Amino acid sequence: MNIGLLNIGDEVVMGKTVNTNASWLAKECEFNGFTISKHLTVKDRGKTIKSALEYLYTEVDIIITTGGLGPTVDDITKEVCAEFFNEEMVLNEKVLDSIKSYFSSIGQIMLEVNNKQAYFIKNSVIIHNDNGTAPGMISEKDSKVCINLPGPPKELHPMFLNTVLPYLKKKQKNIFFKQGYRLMNIGESQAETLIKSLYDEFPNIKIAPYASVGVLDYIISTNNSNEKINFSKACKKFEEILNDYIIGDLTKTINELIVETLISKNKTIAISESCTGGMLSSLFVDVSGSSLTFIEGLITYSNEAKINRLGVSSETIKNYGAVSKETASEMVKRVALISNADIGLATTGIAGPGGGTKEKPVGLVYTAIYYQGKVTVYKHNFRGDRYKVRLRSVMAVMFNLYNDVIKTF
Amino acid sequence: MNIGLLNIGDEVVMGKTVNTNASWLAKECEFNGFTISKHLTVKDRGKTIKSALEYLYTEVDIIITTGGLGPTVDDITKEVCAEFFNEEMVLNEKVLDSIKSYFSSIGQIMLEVNNKQAYFIKNSVIIHNDNGTAPGMISEKDSKVCINLPGPPKELHPMFLNTVLPYLKKKQKNIFFKQGYRLMNIGESQAETLIKSLYDEFPNIKIAPYASVGVLDYIISTNNSNEKINFSKACKKFEEILNDYIIGDLTKTINELIVETLISKNKTIAISESCTGGMLSSLFVDVSGSSLTFIEGLITYSNEAKINRLGVSSETIKNYGAVSKETASEMVKRVALISNADIGLATTGIAGPGGGTKEKPVGLVYTAIYYQGKVTVYKHNFRGDRYKVRLRSVMAVMFNLYNDVIKTF
Repeated sequence: MNIGLLNIGDEVVMGKTVNTNASWLAKECEFNGFTISKHLTVKDRGKTIKSALEYLYTEVDIIITTGGLGPTVDDITKEVCAEFFNEEMVLNEKVLDSIKSYFSSIGQIMLEVNNKQAYFIKNSVIIHNDNGTAPGMISEKDSKVCINLPGPPKELHPMFLNTVLPYLKKKQKNIFFKQGYRLMNIGESQAETLIKSLYDEFPNIKIAPYASVGVLDYIISTNNSNEKINFSKACKKFEEILNDYIIGDLTKTINELIVETLISKNKTIAISESCTGGMLSSLFVDVSGSSLTFIEGLITYSNEAKINRLGVSSETIKNYGAVSKETASEMVKRVALISNADIGLATTGIAGPGGGTKEKPVGLVYTAIYYQGKVTVYKHNFRGDRYKVRLRSVMAVMFNLYNDVIKTF
Repeated sequence: MNIGLLNIGDEVVMGKTVNTNASWLAKECEFNGFTISKHLTVKDRGKTIKSALEYLYTEVDIIITTGGLGPTVDDITKEVCAEFFNEEMVLNEKVLDSIKSYFSSIGQIMLEVNNKQAYFIKNSVIIHNDNGTAPGMISEKDSKVCINLPGPPKELHPMFLNTVLPYLKKKQKNIFFKQGYRLMNIGESQAETLIKSLYDEFPNIKIAPYASVGVLDYIISTNNSNEKINFSKACKKFEEILNDYIIGDLTKTINELIVETLISKNKTIAISESCTGGMLSSLFVDVSGSSLTFIEGLITYSNEAKINRLGVSSETIKNYGAVSKETASEMVKRVALISNADIGLATTGIAGPGGGTKEKPVGLVYTAIYYQGKVTVYKHNFRGDRYKVRLRSVMAVMFNLYNDVIKTF
């Protein structure tokens, strides 16, 4: 089934807001076996929205709109859809009551303007909104489906997942098989080269990579029920070929996986960062409950801090430099020791744009892991700007911690 | 002038890539006095692109496309535009040579497929690409303008700023006045309430807020040359009303402003973080050259770390708790002392979702600044999820450092 996305709102058109709704919805739809044809973003004028619907319906049967369900005069999405379908809007008393209760639950009285949020096209499906006052609506006419959702992601996401997705799945004629994989420590082109043969061997199985900095997600899927066996085979071969890089399915990020495993295994961790400057520790702290495993992080950015705070020998820094295997090794040993942590992590490198030399170019980063008396240092040469070099360093050390240490627990 | 954006590429349509090109281009255009009408994102099929051009040209005279300028068979943007305008594509030998030189500069030989990147519509303007092999193109026909740019932001941005923007500005009939302001420590609705009267007083001056977490940008502009005096008046009044919140124009972020001023004033800084867990230090390290001012960051997340690493008294933590004015005060004093830094910063709070009590709810954060023997502690009650509470804390302490300390240098 082909779906078109229509984002309505001046904020997005003018670039005040990045359109993450479009990519989120597109990804969710594609993950579940639907095809996204196009996204269109328009301002909240009646004529504009109507011509947008006309344009999109020439190619798709289902349109998902976001935005324009609020109480103000600019919020006209449902009204325009009713006009487009030549249908009447009727008041739903139940919804009106629930909007009133929502306001009283936050200690406010519902204003007159909010009345309009309780009007819907006759016989349409009302999508309940637990996180705001704007319910959504699904209306069908002459094989055309229009699904209206609110703009704020924290309202949109649960409404899509809990109501829209089950509704769409009922329309799906074919059974849909899918499996997600999260990979690290491998780039998209390297992965594609390794699994090249799978594309020929399984022509009816969709194998789609989704790359971001340091992380490569794959979705393997098919909506052909005759391909069930091939689907399983393709997954099995994919796992065999890329086994060294797969950290799990798509439900968890690497920092969540690490923190949760460390907590369950009663292991503590301490981090010493130079070039990553707190980015690594911040990803640990980002996981709720991390206080049970994360003792401390020492951002020893200057040489004095490496010497005074961590106890790295000034001779080591003098002889080998702050960016060296030797310094990384001492940093990681010292941070685990002084924090009395089971595991130590360290990073030191040249993030750029300045500071590079021929021997030690921008992008040279050493990451190190300490566990059970053993230190392992990893040398990297990363591409990209200052931010990307730092982010790739953080991703690399988390991958190595997970793959080389945590998997052995 | 009305502009429509057309992003071409399966990756964006399928949600593999967030469409930051659309918001970036829209913002740049709006900042420079152009009106963005809509964004459309489509797949790279000839028929689809052609109907997208038709649809957009019903409402705009200028279309900016991104994507589809590469060497592969899927890259057909220029070809479809030529077909749409019923124009011929011709080889540009000079461009062909420069693509060849580009390849030899990176130690490779140009492949046959790259030939097509040197073909353009006759008499079109060629937009040179310093960062890749895909030149852009500006073509005009019957008062319609089509501007083709490549998809990768690091190629797109300089090409837009250096060539497209000057081209568009020449077409601009009116003089355009604009002034940007970056504000912190104030929300959009509070700011809008304070400047409400300006909207009535200056009906022909555009005053537009762009909000993100902890930062509120405003653009004041007009393209009416008779409004020059009113424009200046509106800016002056805006500055008077919001003086306490303005940190500068839009050229620099708060961390850049802070780091650059500290370097120029020869001041050093050390940071002690609890709930923000490295996020604050990471923003300092993100600024190139920060090693000249940033000595170290101590992420004393556990109570042991606060006591052993920083030397916060265990009595203080016992009597007042880790999240308290007293602990924040000791953290900031101690980190400045042991690092021998001129300035100390500290954060401690309850980021959630767990850990809140009635007395100390989720979102309660203390930030502290030490300078010249004096400690100032700020108490905050932030809304939002764990990540947002942490980010708001970081933004708040940077604002207070800039406003209450750095401005006094």
